[in-house]
Amino acid sequence: MSEPYRIATLGESRFLSPLDLSQAQGDGLGDYVTEDRRILSRHEWGAREPIDPQESFEKAGPREKLFFDPQKVRAAIVTCGGLSPGINSVVRSLFRELHYNYRVPTILGIPFGYAGLVEGSRFAPTELNDDALEDIDRLGGTFLGTSRGSQSVEEQVRFLVDRRIDMLFCIGGDGTQRGACALFREITRQGLPIAIVGVPKTIDNDIPYVSQSFGYATALERSAEVIRCAHAEARSVENGIGLVKLMGRHAGFIAAGATLVSQEANFVLVPEVRFELDGPMGLLEAIEERVRRRGHAVLAVAEGAGQYLFPTGDAGRDASGNPKPHDIGTFLKSVIERRFADRQLPVSVKYFDPSYLVRSSPANSWDRLICDQAARHAAHAAMAGKTGLVVGNWHDDWIHLPLETVIAGKKRLDLEGALWTSALLATGQPRWQPNPDC
Amino acid sequence: MSEPYRIATLGESRFLSPLDLSQAQGDGLGDYVTEDRRILSRHEWGAREPIDPQESFEKAGPREKLFFDPQKVRAAIVTCGGLSPGINSVVRSLFRELHYNYRVPTILGIPFGYAGLVEGSRFAPTELNDDALEDIDRLGGTFLGTSRGSQSVEEQVRFLVDRRIDMLFCIGGDGTQRGACALFREITRQGLPIAIVGVPKTIDNDIPYVSQSFGYATALERSAEVIRCAHAEARSVENGIGLVKLMGRHAGFIAAGATLVSQEANFVLVPEVRFELDGPMGLLEAIEERVRRRGHAVLAVAEGAGQYLFPTGDAGRDASGNPKPHDIGTFLKSVIERRFADRQLPVSVKYFDPSYLVRSSPANSWDRLICDQAARHAAHAAMAGKTGLVVGNWHDDWIHLPLETVIAGKKRLDLEGALWTSALLATGQPRWQPNPDC
Amino acid sequence: MSEPYRIATLGESRFLSPLDLSQAQGDGLGDYVTEDRRILSRHEWGAREPIDPQESFEKAGPREKLFFDPQKVRAAIVTCGGLSPGINSVVRSLFRELHYNYRVPTILGIPFGYAGLVEGSRFAPTELNDDALEDIDRLGGTFLGTSRGSQSVEEQVRFLVDRRIDMLFCIGGDGTQRGACALFREITRQGLPIAIVGVPKTIDNDIPYVSQSFGYATALERSAEVIRCAHAEARSVENGIGLVKLMGRHAGFIAAGATLVSQEANFVLVPEVRFELDGPMGLLEAIEERVRRRGHAVLAVAEGAGQYLFPTGDAGRDASGNPKPHDIGTFLKSVIERRFADRQLPVSVKYFDPSYLVRSSPANSWDRLICDQAARHAAHAAMAGKTGLVVGNWHDDWIHLPLETVIAGKKRLDLEGALWTSALLATGQPRWQPNPDC
Amino acid sequence: MSEPYRIATLGESRFLSPLDLSQAQGDGLGDYVTEDRRILSRHEWGAREPIDPQESFEKAGPREKLFFDPQKVRAAIVTCGGLSPGINSVVRSLFRELHYNYRVPTILGIPFGYAGLVEGSRFAPTELNDDALEDIDRLGGTFLGTSRGSQSVEEQVRFLVDRRIDMLFCIGGDGTQRGACALFREITRQGLPIAIVGVPKTIDNDIPYVSQSFGYATALERSAEVIRCAHAEARSVENGIGLVKLMGRHAGFIAAGATLVSQEANFVLVPEVRFELDGPMGLLEAIEERVRRRGHAVLAVAEGAGQYLFPTGDAGRDASGNPKPHDIGTFLKSVIERRFADRQLPVSVKYFDPSYLVRSSPANSWDRLICDQAARHAAHAAMAGKTGLVVGNWHDDWIHLPLETVIAGKKRLDLEGALWTSALLATGQPRWQPNPDC
Repeated sequence: MSEPYRIATLGESRFLSPLDLSQAQGDGLGDYVTEDRRILSRHEWGAREPIDPQESFEKAGPREKLFFDPQKVRAAIVTCGGLSPGINSVVRSLFRELHYNYRVPTILGIPFGYAGLVEGSRFAPTELNDDALEDIDRLGGTFLGTSRGSQSVEEQVRFLVDRRIDMLFCIGGDGTQRGACALFREITRQGLPIAIVGVPKTIDNDIPYVSQSFGYATALERSAEVIRCAHAEARSVENGIGLVKLMGRHAGFIAAGATLVSQEANFVLVPEVRFELDGPMGLLEAIEERVRRRGHAVLAVAEGAGQYLFPTGDAGRDASGNPKPHDIGTFLKSVIERRFADRQLPVSVKYFDPSYLVRSSPANSWDRLICDQAARHAAHAAMAGKTGLVVGNWHDDWIHLPLETVIAGKKRLDLEGALWTSALLATGQPRWQPNPDC
Repeated sequence: MSEPYRIATLGESRFLSPLDLSQAQGDGLGDYVTEDRRILSRHEWGAREPIDPQESFEKAGPREKLFFDPQKVRAAIVTCGGLSPGINSVVRSLFRELHYNYRVPTILGIPFGYAGLVEGSRFAPTELNDDALEDIDRLGGTFLGTSRGSQSVEEQVRFLVDRRIDMLFCIGGDGTQRGACALFREITRQGLPIAIVGVPKTIDNDIPYVSQSFGYATALERSAEVIRCAHAEARSVENGIGLVKLMGRHAGFIAAGATLVSQEANFVLVPEVRFELDGPMGLLEAIEERVRRRGHAVLAVAEGAGQYLFPTGDAGRDASGNPKPHDIGTFLKSVIERRFADRQLPVSVKYFDPSYLVRSSPANSWDRLICDQAARHAAHAAMAGKTGLVVGNWHDDWIHLPLETVIAGKKRLDLEGALWTSALLATGQPRWQPNPDC
Repeated sequence: MSEPYRIATLGESRFLSPLDLSQAQGDGLGDYVTEDRRILSRHEWGAREPIDPQESFEKAGPREKLFFDPQKVRAAIVTCGGLSPGINSVVRSLFRELHYNYRVPTILGIPFGYAGLVEGSRFAPTELNDDALEDIDRLGGTFLGTSRGSQSVEEQVRFLVDRRIDMLFCIGGDGTQRGACALFREITRQGLPIAIVGVPKTIDNDIPYVSQSFGYATALERSAEVIRCAHAEARSVENGIGLVKLMGRHAGFIAAGATLVSQEANFVLVPEVRFELDGPMGLLEAIEERVRRRGHAVLAVAEGAGQYLFPTGDAGRDASGNPKPHDIGTFLKSVIERRFADRQLPVSVKYFDPSYLVRSSPANSWDRLICDQAARHAAHAAMAGKTGLVVGNWHDDWIHLPLETVIAGKKRLDLEGALWTSALLATGQPRWQPNPDC
Repeated sequence: MSEPYRIATLGESRFLSPLDLSQAQGDGLGDYVTEDRRILSRHEWGAREPIDPQESFEKAGPREKLFFDPQKVRAAIVTCGGLSPGINSVVRSLFRELHYNYRVPTILGIPFGYAGLVEGSRFAPTELNDDALEDIDRLGGTFLGTSRGSQSVEEQVRFLVDRRIDMLFCIGGDGTQRGACALFREITRQGLPIAIVGVPKTIDNDIPYVSQSFGYATALERSAEVIRCAHAEARSVENGIGLVKLMGRHAGFIAAGATLVSQEANFVLVPEVRFELDGPMGLLEAIEERVRRRGHAVLAVAEGAGQYLFPTGDAGRDASGNPKPHDIGTFLKSVIERRFADRQLPVSVKYFDPSYLVRSSPANSWDRLICDQAARHAAHAAMAGKTGLVVGNWHDDWIHLPLETVIAGKKRLDLEGALWTSALLATGQPRWQPNPDC
């Protein structure tokens, strides 16, 4: 295997870091990270299986030598795509690391996403300062503003050059990192000394080689609260059913995680698993059996689950141009109600679709930890002249991950791993087959 | 290196698991874990450093073959020591895994810790049932009751034998696991088929080879809230200082983590670092400088920090017989006030000591995830006849850890790792030397 | 004016209260309330206007003499209709007051609303006890179960007689109190010594002569959180509009109150006001002006607002048989989007409809105070042999209110009072005319 | 009775209000309040008791005619004394009412309390603007800063004159309103056209004729959370006792209210009641009995309770010069421990003293409603030229209250009213005598 996760650099690092850390390991002082430190991409092995040390990532962290002269750096931060809890915390920690620790003189906030990165935008970049950022972690959303959709890569690069921006931090999901990668490629083509560093934002937690993206912990918390409400509704009436549609277009991390957090869902449906509706092993039979036995039931459904149940054809696209999933929530509500009507059983299905309420929350405490770490590691990477990468936490460490890897695919629930197996055991639901489309 | 982390077993596993999981890896179905799966204890390496696959742990998870006949098992659960958020969640998931999935007929709750594990105790074990446990995750504390202090090992083993208990789950910290280990040794000496499985509870997060013990995430959340209050007090008055004493007798995980969560502390003092009070690099100078410059300051202090500042001599022992630390919080309050008086600067120091408020909270959502996983993995281990171990999460996986390893030492902040380095960068405080006593 | 608010009684009170309170006013000891105490129904007067002391209510509270012999009482509690935060707290305080203070031997919980009050119901009443109720205030919903719809009055009375129930506490809204009143009338007709006492539950806070019904404070809290989310979404994008549909079919108390709590809504639409959509004073013009000037806007809309905008015709009925309002939320979303499209202005409308999330929450602290007081005052009333009433808080006191009064009409926002005037001033919205249909 | 609550005015109101409200009652439009509207100070009467309409307050609210020309007003806001939840919400609503609705051109924030109201202060007033205030309701404390202690009245009046300040809003407690009253008297003596309007801040809720001061609802919420923690600790161990010291130097509103909110305290001790320690009716006997019977107990103690138990002599004074109460919390802890030791009963007393954690919280939703209303009504009063008053909510309405009345005494728990009687019934504690010293 040939260095699959190599990180690009802008050139030789010649400036001494002002961070005042230790250059020596083993002296018990906070350290610069040396370039040879690697984090294995895989740490589970069979007892006699040989371990390939090449399957590893570059360890993130502050470098002793910097590519950029910190006293002259002009940095910019942009936030794109839908909301996710914690964006403001990332922006603030980025600012603080650059401003207080690297003493970077100019840090610009780009307004309203990539749309603010072209000349002639209705909005101009603003110079960030600590007063304005002081308490923005209390606020959901993004202080800088966001937008969806893409812009001309050439125009954006010209904008960066014209404004003499040395490093651009791109906080966003899939589409954002795809845009960041396009910028990185064009900058590389033109041989410009501009670093492009991404901070991955996906509330669905579906970025490969990122154990936990910021916003995910908050999503679990808020989602579990909604499951709790659904449970309260369900057990307050005869044959009550609480049905909660959660986020997760392509991966069931939120649905599975919220199931474990709450321990109140009896069924968890995710894109990765092909549940059946009908038949003796089907969902409807299982729901009916549960309701007859216990008087109520609670379902957590990822929005991307069960798409094969719909006739082929488009459910439309969202503002970012991504195909929207068919509405599995209202669909299930109606088939469950029909089933109980057929059986002449009374039923009361309460449906919850909390999506925006989750997305627009401020980050919870666990996510704040992630936000801060992600931001500071991104700053370290850019100052060292690394580019075309995102920072990610992997098995309790922080790594550099090439943008190319990030946009090449999405992370899926490991159906044979502990998270999903525990979700199965926590619900006791039927053992359906994997979904081959996913 | 010779298998340092070998797990004891009670004997051959002959019973088929009723969990209805897949026996084959790669079929996309939730899996039993095979005995050869290992999780590396260390996953960071130098680029050219050879990796030793022996430095690894047994992977936890459901086994296909069980030592105990699930239809006949009598299990017992005991909770000991001080409170930590999440104990009830662990008890409930243990019960549910054993009851619903393994269909264990008898699960006993031992009242008030090890004190309930001797004949003649004022309290008798009670048979647990789902109704009583249904909503206990909303409550802080422990539903079963707890106590501190130790009991006769022989008496406890006799109690287990007399009650025909096959497996005992010990939820507790340091002292509890020490007690569990004594039980395990005595049971082994007598050749009894009783499994002893621990679920490590330490709000301080200082158990070796456990990335995150349950309660820690809640402790960060609650601690950060208190730091937020301290900040509100500090910046509402002229030269305000908010001083927060946090938990952490031997390790600074809570103080460092809460500093990163809140981003509102200007100083973080931990047992592992030997901060100086006086002199140009001293804490007092730095506080004064900060207050002169910004008008206020916030300090987060682990209760075990700065013990070398006190005259030698005992500060007493707690109910478990552990030595109590000297009160660094009120000490710092008085030296800071004296310093400002000397400088004829007005100052208003507000002191916060929220210890019990943190300990008695219910678990937050992130901890609930940990609680559930820890409990289910503990059940799997015991059913497979494994004994003398705790389960722990390590780098996003779940492992078996020998009790002997757990009680052999405590985890300390890695002063050269990302958590502490980030705490340094988030506060900008002086770079003090490590504390050699720690 | 001839005693409009007279409370019926079952007969002479001959038993001494076991509450151990003082019989004398002025001795500084907790008091029994004497029958002559009155609370004015109106306490605002013009400077020279004569005050009519007849316009007053009977003061609620513990009586020294009881109609029922507490040692023999059989009480029952029923909860009906949709969920509202705090039902469980009411049930618990009712139980505790009757059990601990009056030492009532038997307190039954009626399962699933009035449906549980007929013979042949699938569910039997259960005897309540403190263990089961201890922590139910942590749970949303109703521990006893609820249902909608009505039952035969005769059958219910027969049920009460057969089970020798002396007093029935009816926790519920409009329809429930209507049912309670029917029971009261039939019981009166038959001359039975059974007390019917209601605890009014309306999350909309629209019961006449009840300043604040339980659940309302929680509804404000949760609604303001959603408005906060809507604001976060709105200001994170260019021309963002956050649109929140809140509860309130006939009255705008939740919408107006949440507007004042959050201070983040720019428009508040309530059933009592006839806002215009079009024209220079219209809503759309005002929204457009606001968005052009400030870049975003937030709307709070009561579900019963703007019904005159829909073609005549039914929007269906809910499970209780009440007519459902037309969906003003999605309607406004579409007309706003159309307007901005017409003007060729980009816009992003995020729509929030949190109804069930609010209803199924546990009560917040302010509501818990109300719940407890309502329950204890209901117990006092029933023990004294009062019947055909609800208890209500009125201007910081507790009163008895005839069921007849309660079901005769609904409370509306006083459009000339402080709450609505403040909501106008907090939003700065146009001064529309009152809605004559409301 | 001769108009006890007359409000001073600066002179004739000649300017038309820009608020765009209705001048006519009965037209269903938000109204100006006319000068003749009165709110009865007492609304409970005996059935045949004559009602004295003079016992009433001036109703607060927007006036049609203003004393000040809104286009020229220079307003100032000062916050003094200890923290209480909601100060920032009051400041923001004051600013918004004056700025957006009255279009006042200049609104100054006085830094650090009355200390900022003298020339030569280290801090200058700042002109407030909406951007800076936008989200301050998320923060505890006071955005403007506060201080304790008093300043020269003449200097402060000179400061107001020199800065051409027309109206000063004084947000603060007892001492603050005493200071405001001194300013008012001096201004009156000098015949200056400056309005002094107070917004009463007392977390203890002990201002006469104010039903609920802002901060009190939050104090109940946070206090009840702490009682919940104490309960969790108490019932997790054998013979556990949770002891919570709450605020309330002179009045037991917080302790009694939090007892009703939580329903988890078995004893509530307040300054107004003289509980005995020893003897058969004593607290210690009752605690022992409770613990023997139920295994644990929870106490809520107001900080001003039981002061007669200490030897005469001073416990010192706080920064505002008020005498500090003796520490009843630690005192009770030690006498309880001694009692149980004497009885050779094991006991574990956990002590909670959350004072600052409560004070420094942001306001909860119910308090936000109060904060907003208080602020807007204060603005209306000042614009109309009223002075020497505070605004208060009284029985669900808003009134003007002379500063002289406010500082003449403190409100106490009505020991014969519903709040305290309910607290007695919720705890079941002994019926002790009133405290004659209180």
